[in-house]
Amino acid sequence: MNDSFTNRTCISCHLSSADMFQQVSFKELMKVLGLGAVAFVLGVEWLDWLKRRLRVSRGPLKEVLFFPSPHVCVEHLFTRHGRFPCACPLPHGVETSFSRLLEHLLSACRSLDLCVFSFSHMELSRAILLLHKQGVIVRVVTDRDYMTITGSQIGTLRKAGICVRHEMSSAVHMHHKFALVDGKKLITGSLNWTLTAVQSNKENVMVTEEPELVQPYQQEFQKLWEANDPANHKPQTTNGGLNR
Amino acid sequence: MNDSFTNRTCISCHLSSADMFQQVSFKELMKVLGLGAVAFVLGVEWLDWLKRRLRVSRGPLKEVLFFPSPHVCVEHLFTRHGRFPCACPLPHGVETSFSRLLEHLLSACRSLDLCVFSFSHMELSRAILLLHKQGVIVRVVTDRDYMTITGSQIGTLRKAGICVRHEMSSAVHMHHKFALVDGKKLITGSLNWTLTAVQSNKENVMVTEEPELVQPYQQEFQKLWEANDPANHKPQTTNGGLNR
Repeated sequence: MNDSFTNRTCISCHLSSADMFQQVSFKELMKVLGLGAVAFVLGVEWLDWLKRRLRVSRGPLKEVLFFPSPHVCVEHLFTRHGRFPCACPLPHGVETSFSRLLEHLLSACRSLDLCVFSFSHMELSRAILLLHKQGVIVRVVTDRDYMTITGSQIGTLRKAGICVRHEMSSAVHMHHKFALVDGKKLITGSLNWTLTAVQSNKENVMVTEEPELVQPYQQEFQKLWEANDPANHKPQTTNGGLNR
Repeated sequence: MNDSFTNRTCISCHLSSADMFQQVSFKELMKVLGLGAVAFVLGVEWLDWLKRRLRVSRGPLKEVLFFPSPHVCVEHLFTRHGRFPCACPLPHGVETSFSRLLEHLLSACRSLDLCVFSFSHMELSRAILLLHKQGVIVRVVTDRDYMTITGSQIGTLRKAGICVRHEMSSAVHMHHKFALVDGKKLITGSLNWTLTAVQSNKENVMVTEEPELVQPYQQEFQKLWEANDPANHKPQTTNGGLNR
Protein backbone atom coordinates (compact mmCIF):
# COMPACT_ATOMS: atom_id res chain seq x y z
CA MET A 1 0.00 0.00 0.00
CA ASN A 2 2.78 2.38 0.96
CA ASP A 3 4.71 1.53 -2.21
CA SER A 4 1.78 2.17 -4.51
CA PHE A 5 1.10 5.49 -2.74
CA THR A 6 4.73 6.47 -3.19
CA ASN A 7 4.52 5.51 -6.89
CA ARG A 8 1.41 7.66 -7.49
CA THR A 9 3.06 10.58 -5.71
CA CYS A 10 6.10 10.17 -7.86
CA ILE A 11 4.01 10.09 -11.07
CA SER A 12 2.28 13.32 -9.97
CA CYS A 13 5.68 14.85 -9.40
CA HIS A 14 6.56 14.21 -13.03
CA LEU A 15 3.77 16.72 -14.19
CA SER A 16 5.31 20.10 -14.72
CA SER A 17 4.05 23.05 -12.62
CA ALA A 18 2.79 24.76 -15.84
CA ASP A 19 0.52 21.75 -16.65
CA MET A 20 -0.86 21.79 -13.13
CA PHE A 21 -1.55 25.52 -13.33
CA GLN A 22 -3.38 25.04 -16.67
CA GLN A 23 -5.47 22.18 -15.26
CA VAL A 24 -6.44 24.09 -12.13
CA SER A 25 -7.26 27.36 -13.90
CA PHE A 26 -9.48 25.56 -16.48
CA LYS A 27 -11.37 23.86 -13.65
CA GLU A 28 -11.73 27.16 -11.81
CA LEU A 29 -12.90 28.89 -14.97
CA MET A 30 -15.58 26.26 -15.59
CA LYS A 31 -16.69 26.54 -11.97
CA VAL A 32 -16.94 30.33 -12.18
CA LEU A 33 -18.76 30.17 -15.50
CA GLY A 34 -21.20 27.57 -14.19
CA LEU A 35 -21.92 29.53 -11.06
CA GLY A 36 -22.27 32.73 -13.11
CA ALA A 37 -24.82 31.11 -15.42
CA VAL A 38 -26.84 29.82 -12.47
CA ALA A 39 -26.68 33.24 -10.78
CA PHE A 40 -27.78 34.93 -14.03
CA VAL A 41 -30.78 32.61 -14.51
CA LEU A 42 -31.80 32.96 -10.87
CA GLY A 43 -31.41 36.75 -11.08
CA VAL A 44 -33.65 37.00 -14.16
CA GLU A 45 -36.24 34.76 -12.54
CA TRP A 46 -36.14 36.84 -9.34
CA LEU A 47 -36.53 40.12 -11.25
CA ASP A 48 -39.48 38.67 -13.14
CA TRP A 49 -41.06 37.52 -9.86
CA LEU A 50 -40.44 40.96 -8.32
CA LYS A 51 -42.02 42.67 -11.33
CA ARG A 52 -45.11 40.47 -11.05
CA ARG A 53 -45.34 41.09 -7.29
CA LEU A 54 -45.05 44.85 -7.78
CA ARG A 55 -47.74 44.75 -10.47
CA VAL A 56 -50.06 42.77 -8.19
CA SER A 57 -49.49 45.17 -5.31
CA ARG A 58 -50.17 48.15 -7.61
CA GLY A 59 -53.45 46.61 -8.76
CA PRO A 60 -54.57 45.66 -12.26
CA LEU A 61 -52.72 46.93 -15.36
CA LYS A 62 -53.28 50.62 -16.20
CA GLU A 63 -51.34 52.13 -19.08
CA VAL A 64 -51.88 55.28 -21.11
CA LEU A 65 -50.46 55.76 -24.62
CA PHE A 66 -50.35 59.06 -26.47
CA PHE A 67 -50.06 59.59 -30.19
CA PRO A 68 -48.67 60.53 -32.73
CA SER A 69 -46.19 57.69 -32.51
CA PRO A 70 -42.80 57.72 -34.30
CA HIS A 71 -42.54 55.38 -37.29
CA VAL A 72 -40.28 52.50 -36.22
CA CYS A 73 -39.84 48.87 -37.23
CA VAL A 74 -42.32 46.52 -35.51
CA GLU A 75 -41.37 43.41 -37.49
CA HIS A 76 -40.01 41.69 -34.36
CA LEU A 77 -43.52 41.72 -32.87
CA PHE A 78 -44.86 39.64 -35.77
CA THR A 79 -41.90 37.28 -36.13
CA ARG A 80 -40.68 36.79 -32.57
CA HIS A 81 -38.69 33.69 -33.45
CA GLY A 82 -37.40 34.92 -36.82
CA ARG A 83 -33.84 33.74 -37.62
CA PHE A 84 -32.64 36.92 -39.27
CA PRO A 85 -32.89 40.49 -38.01
CA CYS A 86 -35.09 42.83 -40.08
CA ALA A 87 -33.17 44.75 -42.72
CA CYS A 88 -35.69 47.58 -43.28
CA PRO A 89 -34.42 51.19 -43.05
CA LEU A 90 -36.67 52.12 -40.08
CA PRO A 91 -35.24 52.49 -36.54
CA HIS A 92 -35.07 49.14 -34.74
CA GLY A 93 -35.45 48.16 -31.09
CA VAL A 94 -37.37 51.32 -30.20
CA GLU A 95 -40.49 51.07 -28.04
CA THR A 96 -43.25 53.49 -29.08
CA SER A 97 -46.94 54.01 -28.29
CA PHE A 98 -47.79 52.11 -31.46
CA SER A 99 -45.48 49.18 -30.66
CA ARG A 100 -47.05 48.97 -27.17
CA LEU A 101 -50.53 48.99 -28.74
CA LEU A 102 -49.50 46.19 -31.10
CA GLU A 103 -47.98 44.18 -28.24
CA HIS A 104 -51.20 44.44 -26.25
CA LEU A 105 -53.26 43.28 -29.24
CA LEU A 106 -50.90 40.43 -30.07
CA SER A 107 -51.04 39.23 -26.46
CA ALA A 108 -54.51 37.78 -27.22
CA CYS A 109 -54.63 34.00 -26.66
CA ARG A 110 -58.33 33.17 -26.89
CA SER A 111 -60.43 36.10 -28.16
CA LEU A 112 -60.35 39.61 -29.55
CA ASP A 113 -63.51 41.71 -29.66
CA LEU A 114 -63.00 44.86 -31.69
CA CYS A 115 -65.34 47.82 -32.03
CA VAL A 116 -63.83 50.37 -34.38
CA PHE A 117 -65.22 53.26 -36.43
CA SER A 118 -62.52 53.49 -39.09
CA PHE A 119 -59.97 50.74 -39.86
CA SER A 120 -57.38 51.22 -42.60
CA HIS A 121 -54.05 50.69 -40.79
CA MET A 122 -52.13 47.91 -42.56
CA GLU A 123 -50.04 46.75 -39.58
CA LEU A 124 -53.05 46.63 -37.28
CA SER A 125 -54.85 44.63 -39.97
CA ARG A 126 -51.84 42.29 -40.18
CA ALA A 127 -51.98 41.80 -36.41
CA ILE A 128 -55.67 40.88 -36.53
CA LEU A 129 -55.10 38.46 -39.43
CA LEU A 130 -52.20 36.84 -37.53
CA LEU A 131 -54.34 36.35 -34.41
CA HIS A 132 -57.12 34.82 -36.55
CA LYS A 133 -54.55 32.46 -38.14
CA GLN A 134 -53.34 31.47 -34.67
CA GLY A 135 -56.86 30.39 -33.71
CA VAL A 136 -57.87 33.45 -31.68
CA ILE A 137 -61.63 34.07 -32.04
CA VAL A 138 -61.89 37.55 -33.57
CA ARG A 139 -65.18 39.48 -33.75
CA VAL A 140 -65.39 42.96 -35.29
CA VAL A 141 -68.17 45.57 -35.11
CA THR A 142 -67.67 48.59 -37.36
CA ASP A 143 -69.38 51.58 -38.95
CA ARG A 144 -71.59 51.08 -41.99
CA ASP A 145 -70.29 54.07 -43.98
CA TYR A 146 -66.61 53.95 -43.02
CA MET A 147 -66.14 50.24 -43.70
CA THR A 148 -66.31 50.87 -47.45
CA ILE A 149 -64.02 53.90 -47.75
CA THR A 150 -60.80 53.62 -49.78
CA GLY A 151 -58.11 51.71 -47.90
CA SER A 152 -60.52 50.16 -45.40
CA GLN A 153 -59.24 46.81 -44.11
CA ILE A 154 -62.71 45.48 -43.29
CA GLY A 155 -62.98 43.68 -46.65
CA THR A 156 -59.58 42.02 -46.11
CA LEU A 157 -60.67 40.76 -42.68
CA ARG A 158 -63.92 39.39 -44.10
CA LYS A 159 -62.10 37.65 -46.94
CA ALA A 160 -59.84 35.95 -44.38
CA GLY A 161 -62.93 34.54 -42.66
CA ILE A 162 -63.13 36.94 -39.72
CA CYS A 163 -66.67 37.68 -38.48
CA VAL A 164 -67.48 41.35 -39.08
CA ARG A 165 -70.78 43.03 -38.30
CA HIS A 166 -71.61 46.65 -39.02
CA GLU A 167 -74.01 49.22 -37.59
CA MET A 168 -77.30 48.54 -39.33
CA SER A 169 -78.73 52.06 -39.24
CA SER A 170 -77.40 54.49 -41.82
CA ALA A 171 -78.44 57.44 -39.64
CA VAL A 172 -76.14 56.42 -36.79
CA HIS A 173 -72.35 56.21 -36.54
CA MET A 174 -70.70 53.33 -34.66
CA HIS A 175 -68.07 55.70 -33.30
CA HIS A 176 -66.47 53.49 -30.62
CA LYS A 177 -62.74 52.70 -30.79
CA PHE A 178 -62.18 49.92 -28.28
CA ALA A 179 -60.87 46.37 -28.19
CA LEU A 180 -61.16 43.59 -25.60
CA VAL A 181 -58.30 41.11 -25.38
CA ASP A 182 -59.30 37.69 -23.96
CA GLY A 183 -62.27 39.43 -22.31
CA LYS A 184 -60.03 40.86 -19.59
CA LYS A 185 -57.91 43.61 -21.13
CA LEU A 186 -59.57 46.79 -22.41
CA ILE A 187 -57.94 49.04 -25.02
CA THR A 188 -59.95 52.24 -25.54
CA GLY A 189 -59.52 55.88 -26.49
CA SER A 190 -59.83 58.44 -29.25
CA LEU A 191 -57.65 56.56 -31.78
CA ASN A 192 -59.20 55.30 -34.99
CA TRP A 193 -57.21 52.50 -36.61
CA THR A 194 -55.79 54.63 -39.43
CA LEU A 195 -52.26 55.69 -40.40
CA THR A 196 -53.10 59.39 -39.94
CA ALA A 197 -54.38 58.76 -36.42
CA VAL A 198 -51.30 56.75 -35.45
CA GLN A 199 -48.62 58.88 -37.09
CA SER A 200 -50.03 62.41 -37.19
CA ASN A 201 -52.94 63.17 -34.87
CA LYS A 202 -52.98 64.00 -31.17
CA GLU A 203 -54.70 60.88 -29.78
CA ASN A 204 -54.92 58.81 -26.62
CA VAL A 205 -55.35 55.12 -25.84
CA MET A 206 -55.89 53.63 -22.40
CA VAL A 207 -55.08 50.00 -21.63
CA THR A 208 -56.50 48.52 -18.46
CA GLU A 209 -57.37 45.23 -16.82
CA GLU A 210 -59.51 46.91 -14.14
CA PRO A 211 -62.62 44.67 -14.01
CA GLU A 212 -64.93 47.59 -13.13
CA LEU A 213 -63.96 49.19 -16.44
CA VAL A 214 -63.56 46.08 -18.60
CA GLN A 215 -66.97 44.58 -17.75
CA PRO A 216 -69.20 47.45 -19.05
CA TYR A 217 -67.30 47.51 -22.36
CA GLN A 218 -67.66 43.72 -22.69
CA GLN A 219 -71.41 44.06 -22.13
CA GLU A 220 -71.61 46.91 -24.66
CA PHE A 221 -69.75 44.82 -27.24
CA GLN A 222 -72.11 41.88 -26.73
CA LYS A 223 -75.12 44.22 -27.03
CA LEU A 224 -73.84 45.69 -30.31
CA TRP A 225 -72.86 42.24 -31.62
CA GLU A 226 -76.37 40.91 -31.10
CA ALA A 227 -78.15 44.11 -32.23
CA ASN A 228 -76.24 44.03 -35.53
CA ASP A 229 -76.76 40.35 -36.29
CA PRO A 230 -77.72 40.27 -40.01
CA ALA A 231 -80.08 37.37 -39.27
CA ASN A 232 -82.33 39.80 -37.39
CA HIS A 233 -82.44 42.36 -40.17
CA LYS A 234 -84.41 42.09 -43.39
CA PRO A 235 -82.61 43.25 -46.53
CA GLN A 236 -83.62 46.72 -47.69
CA THR A 237 -85.41 47.03 -51.02
CA THR A 238 -85.65 50.01 -53.35
CA ASN A 239 -89.37 49.70 -54.15
CA GLY A 240 -90.65 51.49 -51.06
CA GLY A 241 -90.08 48.50 -48.79
CA LEU A 242 -92.51 46.18 -50.63
CA ASN A 243 -91.28 42.74 -51.73
CA ARG A 244 -93.21 41.99 -54.89
CA MET B 1 -96.67 76.50 50.48
CA ASN B 2 -99.38 73.89 50.87
CA ASP B 3 -102.10 76.43 50.09
CA SER B 4 -100.51 77.59 46.87
CA PHE B 5 -100.00 73.98 45.82
CA THR B 6 -103.70 73.24 46.48
CA ASN B 7 -104.67 76.34 44.46
CA ARG B 8 -102.58 75.33 41.43
CA THR B 9 -104.06 71.81 41.62
CA CYS B 10 -107.59 73.27 41.73
CA ILE B 11 -106.92 75.56 38.76
CA SER B 12 -105.69 72.55 36.79
CA CYS B 13 -108.90 70.74 37.70
CA HIS B 14 -110.89 73.51 36.05
CA LEU B 15 -109.43 72.60 32.62
CA SER B 16 -111.81 70.36 30.77
CA SER B 17 -110.62 66.86 29.78
CA ALA B 18 -110.99 67.84 26.07
CA ASP B 19 -108.56 70.78 26.54
CA MET B 20 -106.09 68.50 28.31
CA PHE B 21 -106.33 65.96 25.53
CA GLN B 22 -105.77 68.68 22.95
CA GLN B 23 -102.78 70.08 24.89
CA VAL B 24 -101.21 66.63 25.39
CA SER B 25 -101.72 65.47 21.81
CA PHE B 26 -100.24 68.73 20.45
CA LYS B 27 -97.19 68.27 22.69
CA GLU B 28 -96.88 64.65 21.64
CA LEU B 29 -97.24 65.59 17.99
CA MET B 30 -94.49 68.20 18.31
CA LYS B 31 -92.28 65.66 20.07
CA VAL B 32 -92.85 63.04 17.38
CA LEU B 33 -92.29 65.55 14.60
CA GLY B 34 -89.11 66.82 16.24
CA LEU B 35 -87.75 63.34 16.78
CA GLY B 36 -88.75 62.38 13.24
CA ALA B 37 -86.89 65.37 11.80
CA VAL B 38 -83.77 64.55 13.84
CA ALA B 39 -83.98 60.88 12.80
CA PHE B 40 -84.39 61.89 9.15
CA VAL B 41 -81.38 64.22 9.20
CA LEU B 42 -79.26 61.63 11.02
CA GLY B 43 -80.41 58.92 8.59
CA VAL B 44 -79.47 61.02 5.56
CA GLU B 45 -76.08 61.84 7.09
CA TRP B 46 -75.48 58.17 7.92
CA LEU B 47 -76.38 57.05 4.39
CA ASP B 48 -74.05 59.66 2.96
CA TRP B 49 -71.25 58.47 5.28
CA LEU B 50 -71.94 54.84 4.31
CA LYS B 51 -71.85 55.75 0.61
CA ARG B 52 -68.50 57.50 1.05
CA ARG B 53 -67.12 54.56 3.06
CA LEU B 54 -68.25 52.07 0.42
CA ARG B 55 -66.70 54.21 -2.29
CA VAL B 56 -63.39 54.41 -0.41
CA SER B 57 -63.34 50.65 0.15
CA ARG B 58 -64.05 50.06 -3.58
CA GLY B 59 -61.20 52.37 -4.60
CA PRO B 60 -61.31 55.54 -6.69
CA LEU B 61 -64.36 56.41 -8.81
CA LYS B 62 -64.74 54.38 -12.01
CA GLU B 63 -67.84 54.93 -14.16
CA VAL B 64 -68.59 54.10 -17.78
CA LEU B 65 -71.28 55.89 -19.79
CA PHE B 66 -72.58 54.72 -23.15
CA PHE B 67 -74.33 56.79 -25.78
CA PRO B 68 -76.70 57.60 -27.50
CA SER B 69 -78.44 59.14 -24.53
CA PRO B 70 -82.21 59.79 -24.43
CA HIS B 71 -83.20 63.46 -24.66
CA VAL B 72 -84.44 64.47 -21.21
CA CYS B 73 -84.66 67.72 -19.25
CA VAL B 74 -81.39 68.64 -17.48
CA GLU B 75 -82.51 72.09 -16.30
CA HIS B 76 -82.30 71.03 -12.65
CA LEU B 77 -78.54 70.54 -13.03
CA PHE B 78 -78.08 74.19 -13.99
CA THR B 79 -80.57 75.70 -11.53
CA ARG B 80 -80.27 73.48 -8.47
CA HIS B 81 -81.97 76.01 -6.19
CA GLY B 82 -84.60 77.19 -8.68
CA ARG B 83 -87.97 78.03 -7.08
CA PHE B 84 -90.17 76.67 -9.82
CA PRO B 85 -90.00 73.25 -11.50
CA CYS B 86 -89.14 73.29 -15.20
CA ALA B 87 -92.21 73.40 -17.47
CA CYS B 88 -90.53 72.09 -20.65
CA PRO B 89 -92.15 69.13 -22.47
CA LEU B 90 -89.13 66.80 -22.05
CA PRO B 91 -89.18 63.93 -19.51
CA HIS B 92 -88.12 65.13 -16.03
CA GLY B 93 -86.23 63.45 -13.19
CA VAL B 94 -84.63 60.85 -15.47
CA GLU B 95 -80.94 60.06 -15.08
CA THR B 96 -79.18 59.42 -18.40
CA SER B 97 -75.59 59.09 -19.64
CA PHE B 98 -75.73 62.71 -20.71
CA SER B 99 -77.08 63.95 -17.37
CA ARG B 100 -74.30 62.01 -15.58
CA LEU B 101 -71.70 63.57 -17.91
CA LEU B 102 -73.10 67.03 -17.15
CA GLU B 103 -73.11 66.33 -13.41
CA HIS B 104 -69.46 65.31 -13.51
CA LEU B 105 -68.52 68.46 -15.42
CA LEU B 106 -70.56 70.73 -13.16
CA SER B 107 -68.89 69.19 -10.09
CA ALA B 108 -65.78 71.29 -10.90
CA CYS B 109 -64.88 73.66 -8.06
CA ARG B 110 -61.46 75.01 -9.04
CA SER B 111 -60.47 74.05 -12.59
CA LEU B 112 -61.61 72.43 -15.81
CA ASP B 113 -59.08 71.47 -18.48
CA LEU B 114 -60.79 70.47 -21.70
CA CYS B 115 -59.23 68.90 -24.78
CA VAL B 116 -61.90 68.41 -27.43
CA PHE B 117 -61.83 67.89 -31.21
CA SER B 118 -65.34 69.11 -32.04
CA PHE B 119 -67.53 71.21 -29.73
CA SER B 120 -71.00 72.32 -30.82
CA HIS B 121 -73.28 70.97 -28.07
CA MET B 122 -75.28 73.88 -26.61
CA GLU B 123 -75.89 72.40 -23.16
CA LEU B 124 -72.26 71.40 -22.72
CA SER B 125 -71.30 74.94 -23.77
CA ARG B 126 -73.78 76.32 -21.22
CA ALA B 127 -72.15 74.15 -18.52
CA ILE B 128 -68.68 75.49 -19.37
CA LEU B 129 -69.93 79.09 -19.37
CA LEU B 130 -71.62 78.54 -15.99
CA LEU B 131 -68.41 77.13 -14.48
CA HIS B 132 -66.44 80.10 -15.85
CA LYS B 133 -69.02 82.49 -14.31
CA GLN B 134 -68.67 80.69 -10.97
CA GLY B 135 -64.92 81.38 -10.96
CA VAL B 136 -63.72 77.95 -12.10
CA ILE B 137 -60.52 78.31 -14.17
CA VAL B 138 -61.39 76.85 -17.58
CA ARG B 139 -58.75 76.07 -20.24
CA VAL B 140 -59.67 74.63 -23.63
CA VAL B 141 -57.47 73.04 -26.31
CA THR B 142 -59.22 72.29 -29.59
CA ASP B 143 -58.73 71.46 -33.26
CA ARG B 144 -57.77 74.19 -35.69
CA ASP B 145 -60.17 73.17 -38.48
CA TYR B 146 -63.14 72.04 -36.40
CA MET B 147 -63.26 75.11 -34.16
CA THR B 148 -64.62 77.21 -37.03
CA ILE B 149 -67.29 74.85 -38.40
CA THR B 150 -70.94 75.91 -38.31
CA GLY B 151 -72.39 75.64 -34.83
CA SER B 152 -69.03 75.45 -33.08
CA GLN B 153 -69.20 76.82 -29.53
CA ILE B 154 -65.52 77.77 -29.40
CA GLY B 155 -66.25 81.38 -30.47
CA THR B 156 -68.90 81.68 -27.72
CA LEU B 157 -66.42 80.47 -25.09
CA ARG B 158 -63.76 82.91 -26.29
CA LYS B 159 -66.23 85.82 -26.27
CA ALA B 160 -67.07 84.97 -22.64
CA GLY B 161 -63.37 85.33 -21.75
CA ILE B 162 -62.46 81.63 -21.56
CA CYS B 163 -58.87 80.81 -22.59
CA VAL B 164 -58.93 78.66 -25.75
CA ARG B 165 -55.88 77.42 -27.63
CA HIS B 166 -55.94 75.41 -30.83
CA GLU B 167 -53.62 72.97 -32.52
CA MET B 168 -51.15 75.13 -34.43
CA SER B 169 -50.37 72.74 -37.27
CA SER B 170 -52.93 72.51 -40.06
CA ALA B 171 -51.60 69.04 -41.03
CA VAL B 172 -52.48 67.52 -37.66
CA HIS B 173 -55.82 66.93 -35.92
CA MET B 174 -56.18 67.50 -32.19
CA HIS B 175 -58.44 64.47 -31.92
CA HIS B 176 -58.54 64.03 -28.12
CA LYS B 177 -61.88 64.12 -26.29
CA PHE B 178 -61.03 64.38 -22.61
CA ALA B 179 -61.65 66.69 -19.67
CA LEU B 180 -60.00 67.00 -16.27
CA VAL B 181 -62.14 68.22 -13.39
CA ASP B 182 -60.17 69.90 -10.57
CA GLY B 183 -57.09 68.00 -11.79
CA LYS B 184 -58.34 64.79 -10.18
CA LYS B 185 -61.29 63.50 -12.21
CA LEU B 186 -60.74 62.31 -15.78
CA ILE B 187 -63.55 62.19 -18.35
CA THR B 188 -62.40 60.52 -21.58
CA GLY B 189 -63.71 58.43 -24.46
CA SER B 190 -64.87 58.50 -28.07
CA LEU B 191 -67.52 61.22 -27.62
CA ASN B 192 -67.11 64.53 -29.40
CA TRP B 193 -69.10 67.35 -27.82
CA THR B 194 -71.78 67.47 -30.51
CA LEU B 195 -75.54 66.83 -30.51
CA THR B 196 -75.16 63.95 -33.01
CA ALA B 197 -72.58 62.24 -30.82
CA VAL B 198 -74.72 62.57 -27.69
CA GLN B 199 -78.12 61.73 -29.17
CA SER B 200 -77.40 59.44 -32.15
CA ASN B 201 -73.97 57.78 -32.25
CA LYS B 202 -72.68 54.72 -30.46
CA GLU B 203 -70.13 56.29 -28.12
CA ASN B 204 -68.42 55.70 -24.80
CA VAL B 205 -67.18 57.91 -21.98
CA MET B 206 -65.16 56.77 -18.99
CA VAL B 207 -65.05 58.78 -15.76
CA THR B 208 -62.33 57.92 -13.26
CA GLU B 209 -60.40 59.36 -10.34
CA GLU B 210 -57.70 56.66 -10.55
CA PRO B 211 -54.46 58.68 -10.12
CA GLU B 212 -52.47 56.32 -12.39
CA LEU B 213 -54.85 57.22 -15.23
CA VAL B 214 -55.54 60.88 -14.37
CA GLN B 215 -51.88 61.92 -14.10
CA PRO B 216 -50.76 61.07 -17.69
CA TYR B 217 -53.76 62.94 -19.14
CA GLN B 218 -52.98 65.96 -16.94
CA GLN B 219 -49.38 65.93 -18.21
CA GLU B 220 -50.60 65.58 -21.82
CA PHE B 221 -52.94 68.54 -21.37
CA GLN B 222 -50.14 70.70 -19.95
CA LYS B 223 -47.86 69.67 -22.84
CA LEU B 224 -50.49 70.60 -25.44
CA TRP B 225 -51.35 73.83 -23.61
CA GLU B 226 -47.74 74.97 -23.69
CA ALA B 227 -47.05 73.71 -27.22
CA ASN B 228 -49.99 75.68 -28.58
CA ASP B 229 -49.24 78.95 -26.80
CA PRO B 230 -49.75 81.63 -29.50
CA ALA B 231 -46.86 83.60 -27.96
CA ASN B 232 -44.47 80.91 -29.20
CA HIS B 233 -45.79 80.91 -32.78
CA LYS B 234 -45.13 83.49 -35.43
CA PRO B 235 -48.09 84.45 -37.64
CA GLN B 236 -48.08 82.65 -40.99
CA THR B 237 -47.64 84.70 -44.11
CA THR B 238 -48.72 83.92 -47.66
CA ASN B 239 -45.54 85.07 -49.42
CA GLY B 240 -43.55 81.90 -48.98
CA GLY B 241 -42.78 82.53 -45.33
CA LEU B 242 -40.80 85.79 -45.94
CA ASN B 243 -41.73 88.89 -43.95
CA ARG B 244 -41.01 91.80 -46.26
